[in-house]
Amino acid sequence: MTQFVLPKNDTFLRALRREETEYTPVWLMRQAGRYLPEYRATRAKAGNFMGLCTNPELACEVTLQPLERYPLDAAILFSDILTVPDAMGLGLYFEEGEGPKFKHPIVTEEDVAKLAVPDIEEKLGYVTQAVSTIRGALNGRVPLIGFTGSPWTLACYMVEGGGSSDFRKVKTMLYKRPDLMHQILSVTTEAVIQYLKAQIAAGAQAVMIFDSWGGALADDAFKKFSLAYIRQIVKALPLQANRGTFTEDIPSIVFTKGGGLWLEDIASTGASAVGVDWTVNLGQARARVGDRCAIQGNLDPNVLFASPAQIQAEVAKSLESFGVPQAGCGHVFNLGHGISQFTDPESVTAMVEAVHSYSRRQRQKNS
Amino acid sequence: MTQFVLPKNDTFLRALRREETEYTPVWLMRQAGRYLPEYRATRAKAGNFMGLCTNPELACEVTLQPLERYPLDAAILFSDILTVPDAMGLGLYFEEGEGPKFKHPIVTEEDVAKLAVPDIEEKLGYVTQAVSTIRGALNGRVPLIGFTGSPWTLACYMVEGGGSSDFRKVKTMLYKRPDLMHQILSVTTEAVIQYLKAQIAAGAQAVMIFDSWGGALADDAFKKFSLAYIRQIVKALPLQANRGTFTEDIPSIVFTKGGGLWLEDIASTGASAVGVDWTVNLGQARARVGDRCAIQGNLDPNVLFASPAQIQAEVAKSLESFGVPQAGCGHVFNLGHGISQFTDPESVTAMVEAVHSYSRRQRQKNS
Repeated sequence: MTQFVLPKNDTFLRALRREETEYTPVWLMRQAGRYLPEYRATRAKAGNFMGLCTNPELACEVTLQPLERYPLDAAILFSDILTVPDAMGLGLYFEEGEGPKFKHPIVTEEDVAKLAVPDIEEKLGYVTQAVSTIRGALNGRVPLIGFTGSPWTLACYMVEGGGSSDFRKVKTMLYKRPDLMHQILSVTTEAVIQYLKAQIAAGAQAVMIFDSWGGALADDAFKKFSLAYIRQIVKALPLQANRGTFTEDIPSIVFTKGGGLWLEDIASTGASAVGVDWTVNLGQARARVGDRCAIQGNLDPNVLFASPAQIQAEVAKSLESFGVPQAGCGHVFNLGHGISQFTDPESVTAMVEAVHSYSRRQRQKNS
Repeated sequence: MTQFVLPKNDTFLRALRREETEYTPVWLMRQAGRYLPEYRATRAKAGNFMGLCTNPELACEVTLQPLERYPLDAAILFSDILTVPDAMGLGLYFEEGEGPKFKHPIVTEEDVAKLAVPDIEEKLGYVTQAVSTIRGALNGRVPLIGFTGSPWTLACYMVEGGGSSDFRKVKTMLYKRPDLMHQILSVTTEAVIQYLKAQIAAGAQAVMIFDSWGGALADDAFKKFSLAYIRQIVKALPLQANRGTFTEDIPSIVFTKGGGLWLEDIASTGASAVGVDWTVNLGQARARVGDRCAIQGNLDPNVLFASPAQIQAEVAKSLESFGVPQAGCGHVFNLGHGISQFTDPESVTAMVEAVHSYSRRQRQKNS
């Protein structure tokens, strides 16, 4: 049984609660990943990517690796969004250099009818075990984020059978058989709710919903086929978790890649924060979202291919665009997408340092 | 020498001028394309895609094919956006199923230094000849649209050497060597201006700038590295062309795929219309753009995989979302991206019919 402790560094959680912070907290999507040589070594030990995901000790090891290098303000569970459809029997596998694929994609009406919410403990116990192992190992250093894919994003992979550039199969179903699409999304939503609840029970201190393909949808379809289900998830999540000797808030972050046009709608789900990609102007996003929730984002990961001085300048521009967060408004610095595997780890050092030092100076100037 | 005649059906041009129209005009991006069996036959005759582009007679043949099937309100020159970098010496080629590639992508500072505006007549005479052949063959049936890629979009291909999912090479240059990127964009902008002027002189009655990859840029970078150059192009284009016995207006359309957040900025370039993809709500776009320009778009091409009745319903939703265009406001119906090669030609029949009939009824109800 994990002995829960409160985080020593709770800057990330305070920013999500829109309380004042001494500096802007930062973490990176895919911060435990291939750009780190130590990650590649652990992955080699595990054999492959899923070997890493399904081994709680190794998943914990890679989760902590970026924290050893950088003073990041949050850890994120090492896992994959496709564990849920895999648990639903679709047979996830990875082919070198090809991205994730499913052995049994959803093709027919019968495939849809067979879909059921998996037994989370039985099929995804490796994830909740990883969460509790990591929470124990963190020992209160920084908060641990759990996560899921959004139902629409999972459905894209489930119907396409892998990645796609045009989403032809899944959108054909959406436009031609909206009843089947809603059925897939309903089952997946219930699975995701149980999955996130299990992660929270195991120790996750915040949860993030990755709506990676929401931005591929038409305006009207986004609201009906992605946002409506995200709203159900946010509403179903517990706002707090009882940890025995204390109770902690569980903030949630919704990130629709390419969803900049819909920030107000996403903010209205009741999520604690809306994630934004680099196409969004942070100052404008802050004005649009108002006091409904915090904002997370949004440096272009390609900025990390520039020099340290250029990275610092881009970080400063981004922080200036947001402005100093007042009480009632929060900013968590992040990239607008996962970090590239080709990134020099030293560039991350420059970025994290720039976020912390520039945002401290900003607050001092302003006070 | 082409004998220029005024178009019999000028609904498209009137919508771009934001004058009242009896119905909403419609054309499709990539309307002359692989979904049509007659196109595939002509392409087979030409040997390959570039054989088709460089043969004015065959380019004319495929340009007219969709007009034989559907009562479309505009024709668009059959060509490719990459003819310009090809004319600059980059060596365009196509590998089956792989998309366009360049033999000599821009890699070094020396490659950038060598770039020069090509002699349009000498290198791209096949395009201007195609324009004048098509204009002659149309004989005033509908207006002919000329086009170009935006400088940023062309630069993406020129630096990446082909398509890309992360734009790592071109964005590395952008962030690390903005001086080199601006140099590429400046030369390309001048080439594009001369290219469009030549198309207009040859008979193009409207021009469209395809900023297919503008939406991959960060907010600030979009304005500096894409929009600034598009603005230069729009400002450099002639507003009218002298056709001997008459003078005609030459409207321009700027389409940044994924540029929905920047509609006001794009509208401020002075373009006659802004193209929008399906993520944009047409009613909101209309309110944001106001009386600055017309709007073109924006059905998801995947809608065409649904049934005729479902296609009609989506068209109606789209037209209702825009509302009836009043004087001072114009709408050209289109897809939000090129039509898919897997589309059933009958679906296009249903779509075009729905746009024309529903938009007529809308106006009647409203009058």
